[in-house]
Amino acid sequence: MKIGFIGLGNMGGPMALNLVKAGHQLSVFDLVPASVQKLTEAGAKAFASPAEVAAQDIDMLVTMLPASAHVRSVYLGENGILSTVKKTVLLIDSSTIDPQTAREVSAAAQKQGNAMVDAPVSGGTGGAQAGTLTFMVGGSEEDFARVKPILENMGKNIVYCGGTGNGQVAKIANNMLLGISMIGTAEAMNLGVSLGMDPKILAGIINTSSGRCWSSEVYNPYPGVVETAPASREYTGGFGADLMLKDLGLATEAAKVAKAPVTLGATAQQLYQTFSNQGQGGLDFSAIIKMLQKA
Amino acid sequence: MKIGFIGLGNMGGPMALNLVKAGHQLSVFDLVPASVQKLTEAGAKAFASPAEVAAQDIDMLVTMLPASAHVRSVYLGENGILSTVKKTVLLIDSSTIDPQTAREVSAAAQKQGNAMVDAPVSGGTGGAQAGTLTFMVGGSEEDFARVKPILENMGKNIVYCGGTGNGQVAKIANNMLLGISMIGTAEAMNLGVSLGMDPKILAGIINTSSGRCWSSEVYNPYPGVVETAPASREYTGGFGADLMLKDLGLATEAAKVAKAPVTLGATAQQLYQTFSNQGQGGLDFSAIIKMLQKA
Amino acid sequence: MKIGFIGLGNMGGPMALNLVKAGHQLSVFDLVPASVQKLTEAGAKAFASPAEVAAQDIDMLVTMLPASAHVRSVYLGENGILSTVKKTVLLIDSSTIDPQTAREVSAAAQKQGNAMVDAPVSGGTGGAQAGTLTFMVGGSEEDFARVKPILENMGKNIVYCGGTGNGQVAKIANNMLLGISMIGTAEAMNLGVSLGMDPKILAGIINTSSGRCWSSEVYNPYPGVVETAPASREYTGGFGADLMLKDLGLATEAAKVAKAPVTLGATAQQLYQTFSNQGQGGLDFSAIIKMLQKA
Amino acid sequence: MKIGFIGLGNMGGPMALNLVKAGHQLSVFDLVPASVQKLTEAGAKAFASPAEVAAQDIDMLVTMLPASAHVRSVYLGENGILSTVKKTVLLIDSSTIDPQTAREVSAAAQKQGNAMVDAPVSGGTGGAQAGTLTFMVGGSEEDFARVKPILENMGKNIVYCGGTGNGQVAKIANNMLLGISMIGTAEAMNLGVSLGMDPKILAGIINTSSGRCWSSEVYNPYPGVVETAPASREYTGGFGADLMLKDLGLATEAAKVAKAPVTLGATAQQLYQTFSNQGQGGLDFSAIIKMLQKA
Repeated sequence: MKIGFIGLGNMGGPMALNLVKAGHQLSVFDLVPASVQKLTEAGAKAFASPAEVAAQDIDMLVTMLPASAHVRSVYLGENGILSTVKKTVLLIDSSTIDPQTAREVSAAAQKQGNAMVDAPVSGGTGGAQAGTLTFMVGGSEEDFARVKPILENMGKNIVYCGGTGNGQVAKIANNMLLGISMIGTAEAMNLGVSLGMDPKILAGIINTSSGRCWSSEVYNPYPGVVETAPASREYTGGFGADLMLKDLGLATEAAKVAKAPVTLGATAQQLYQTFSNQGQGGLDFSAIIKMLQKA
Repeated sequence: MKIGFIGLGNMGGPMALNLVKAGHQLSVFDLVPASVQKLTEAGAKAFASPAEVAAQDIDMLVTMLPASAHVRSVYLGENGILSTVKKTVLLIDSSTIDPQTAREVSAAAQKQGNAMVDAPVSGGTGGAQAGTLTFMVGGSEEDFARVKPILENMGKNIVYCGGTGNGQVAKIANNMLLGISMIGTAEAMNLGVSLGMDPKILAGIINTSSGRCWSSEVYNPYPGVVETAPASREYTGGFGADLMLKDLGLATEAAKVAKAPVTLGATAQQLYQTFSNQGQGGLDFSAIIKMLQKA
Repeated sequence: MKIGFIGLGNMGGPMALNLVKAGHQLSVFDLVPASVQKLTEAGAKAFASPAEVAAQDIDMLVTMLPASAHVRSVYLGENGILSTVKKTVLLIDSSTIDPQTAREVSAAAQKQGNAMVDAPVSGGTGGAQAGTLTFMVGGSEEDFARVKPILENMGKNIVYCGGTGNGQVAKIANNMLLGISMIGTAEAMNLGVSLGMDPKILAGIINTSSGRCWSSEVYNPYPGVVETAPASREYTGGFGADLMLKDLGLATEAAKVAKAPVTLGATAQQLYQTFSNQGQGGLDFSAIIKMLQKA
Repeated sequence: MKIGFIGLGNMGGPMALNLVKAGHQLSVFDLVPASVQKLTEAGAKAFASPAEVAAQDIDMLVTMLPASAHVRSVYLGENGILSTVKKTVLLIDSSTIDPQTAREVSAAAQKQGNAMVDAPVSGGTGGAQAGTLTFMVGGSEEDFARVKPILENMGKNIVYCGGTGNGQVAKIANNMLLGISMIGTAEAMNLGVSLGMDPKILAGIINTSSGRCWSSEVYNPYPGVVETAPASREYTGGFGADLMLKDLGLATEAAKVAKAPVTLGATAQQLYQTFSNQGQGGLDFSAIIKMLQKA
């Protein structure tokens, strides 16, 4: 298939490479020449703007951008995708952004005849390279059926979330709960150990009880409890605290629009902001336990 | 075996009955005559005070009391257990109380030669009746080995947590995380549904992602998502919100003593207090989602 | 002077009337005919769009709009002010919006040669009618000197806050602290009274001690403590809880952009959201104390 | 007058000295010999235990102790005050403790015929030395009239708070509001400055607006805004963060007993705990603003 791809950073780059490896013909754009070069070396063709990529003879177009403002500009701006794209091109935005922007951009695309789905991912840069990402897809069932085979070249878990914007909703709802559970696990582990318990015994009890969660079982923030977790390698690798901060920011902002109280979500967002300001935003997000411990 | 049992309420009553059914000889006490009668009808012998029960020719003595003040009084008070008990009697306190009190009472018992373990339970009145409780046991490994066979007459999961008081520590750490996860799940589900998602689809995604937890999988607070959860029967049965409030109170208090920050735990405690004041403390604790929804 | 005025609602209407009363010639616009009529009856001239008002021979132009999106659209949109306004017209936006939007719109105005200040108000509809509003003005000192005499026709306290956007910053910083202090006062009063104190004695002690604040002295949320406060007239009149919710929303959003932790501010925002969802958003914001009291 | 005084630390020491200076005869006790020596050098007579002090021919007895456990032990313990004190002695406890303990100890005293008031202070070690403390007094009006002249030898503001325990209630309610207001002021100042405002201008606006509070006016946490505030001398002197943490601990614990939600109070307590764990508990409590700033 002929596919356009815009946004070739830490996530978009390896995703686009996986599409090339799967045999697709790629037309690409990124502001950073070095990022573009990796793709052209693999056989992709580079263009000078989103509008130029969109003007090519392509079947689908994938975007992977840092934030809502970029998505808005790349799709709706002067040299944006919608200014040149043909009606037959199916648009896929894999950026993680707020649901409202996703719905507005999608509505603009549909107004001029283009199908569009939002398909944010989880799985990190490791998953992007290995092609094992999870895609959460919002759009019509018909469009989901069309994009699924393509997304399977980049991920192994392609989940249908319902109408437009619901991919974003699912991602921020899940990640908000993840942020809360992680801090909750950190508080429970630190409390128990401070009161004299062995961390492995405590984790074992929680993991067979009603407190168990992904953060306690798979990704325990206490060093040495789970050998494969970032906590056991000084909080390197994994999902950065600043990325969690971004997702909690999206969740609390969407909650304002929805008039849905998220008291723990908002508190979690503040704690990650405090942690980030202390210069720790580059560590894995489970490192938040360090903020609870005595200096 | 000959066993003393003090505290025959909603939890202690059925626990004591299970010991009788298992063939043990019970000497019992409770302030409420009707509670005592159920046990005497089953074959137990009743006495007029904790001190009288403790004075009998018994091997072990179990207490199941509402709060720290009762434990302190029943063990250390004028007519208390320690005033009459023989040194060979192994003491088991199954009340849920703060770890400090557990350790102080245990130290007093050991000072006069009595072995003692703390063994709080989870599993609710249903588990007490069915004999399927989980016991979290703090004390020496030797004492744990002695009490395990007896506890197995009342529960199916007997977990060793380390030294004295650690049973209480494990319970409050787990339940604090449970309270946080439940509110987090309620916030995430309500946010997602408010933004247009189907609750079952959202729960399905969370439960296969990093947000998954016991509260989302087994006990989802959104009605209709898990058929067997209290949310699907109007929040009746289950673990009452006021009991969760009590456990969060113990956890935050222990956290003060340990100088361990529990920001989400303390916020959860306040939210349950607010919910309780609105007259909802008798509902299952997953009903906290009602406080997030529009009136 | 010849002045344009766009936005004639509960705040803008009486503000514009005060300009008419002060002898200025007004050119006005609002979407609601009844709002326009009140001004035309007083002698103002009505026009069909913001662009038409801006096209008149005017010296200054005041806007008073509900939210950022309206400001953006009224200034930058197709039929917006900047499409027709002459360079000599000084623009004054009195809407309460986020500082970023204020700065973006102001930059756009200045780019095409128009001076602009942000001048949000406090004092409510009562202050708007009585001409006793406080204006917090952001912009150059020169422009401040020009707008001050005009603003004095609508308010009695005209405060210079520094460069563009700082009027908005001052307002949201002050109102965030107000929201926090109000909930804090409500918690302290309710706690003290629940523990047996007389509310007037407690307020008296706080007001001569380090806990004193505007919310405890002037606007005490406990009924009967301050006769002139909304609490003493069942929380009617005053500053609505939903308006406080809006300002806390602006503050927490600006805090994200500034990467400034506002943990109490964000918690206050969530508590007002919860209160609003319980159907209480129309009451004065001091009514938040009702959420703390037993049902 | 003949007065007993127990507890001669940083606060009690200078308070007792002021009583000596006022011409009273003092019988004193403290565990630390150096603290006792300062008083005996000034003319007081030392004794070997609280019970011995209480057994002297005295009119009143003042205690100034670190926490509830000490008060309980000094009054009710084996060598405690109540074991020897004559019925005519009026007891004054100036420790800051939880209201329940204050009421229990007072009830025990009254049961054996001794009048007792709780009279916690504010004003710090500076106020203790200068004799300018504020006393918040709980007890009968008659007893208040009797203790007032004596307390005026140690303070300048003697406030009647109502029945037994209300001195403690007033103090913790005020100090909880103070802790909340201080963090709120820190958040508002840091937010405004991060968004580009001059700190003095921002403080000026807040202090003439609805956000004003003692923390913004007298004790502003931003350096340089109030020359006499600890913020302008690197947060030395003043009221230590760890003392605020203690008072917030008492307030949140009393709130549990009263079933009064204090969501901001509990969050403030957690933030001070976090700050203390980062090794900052010895700084003035306004230094909490450092936790909000970028590292």
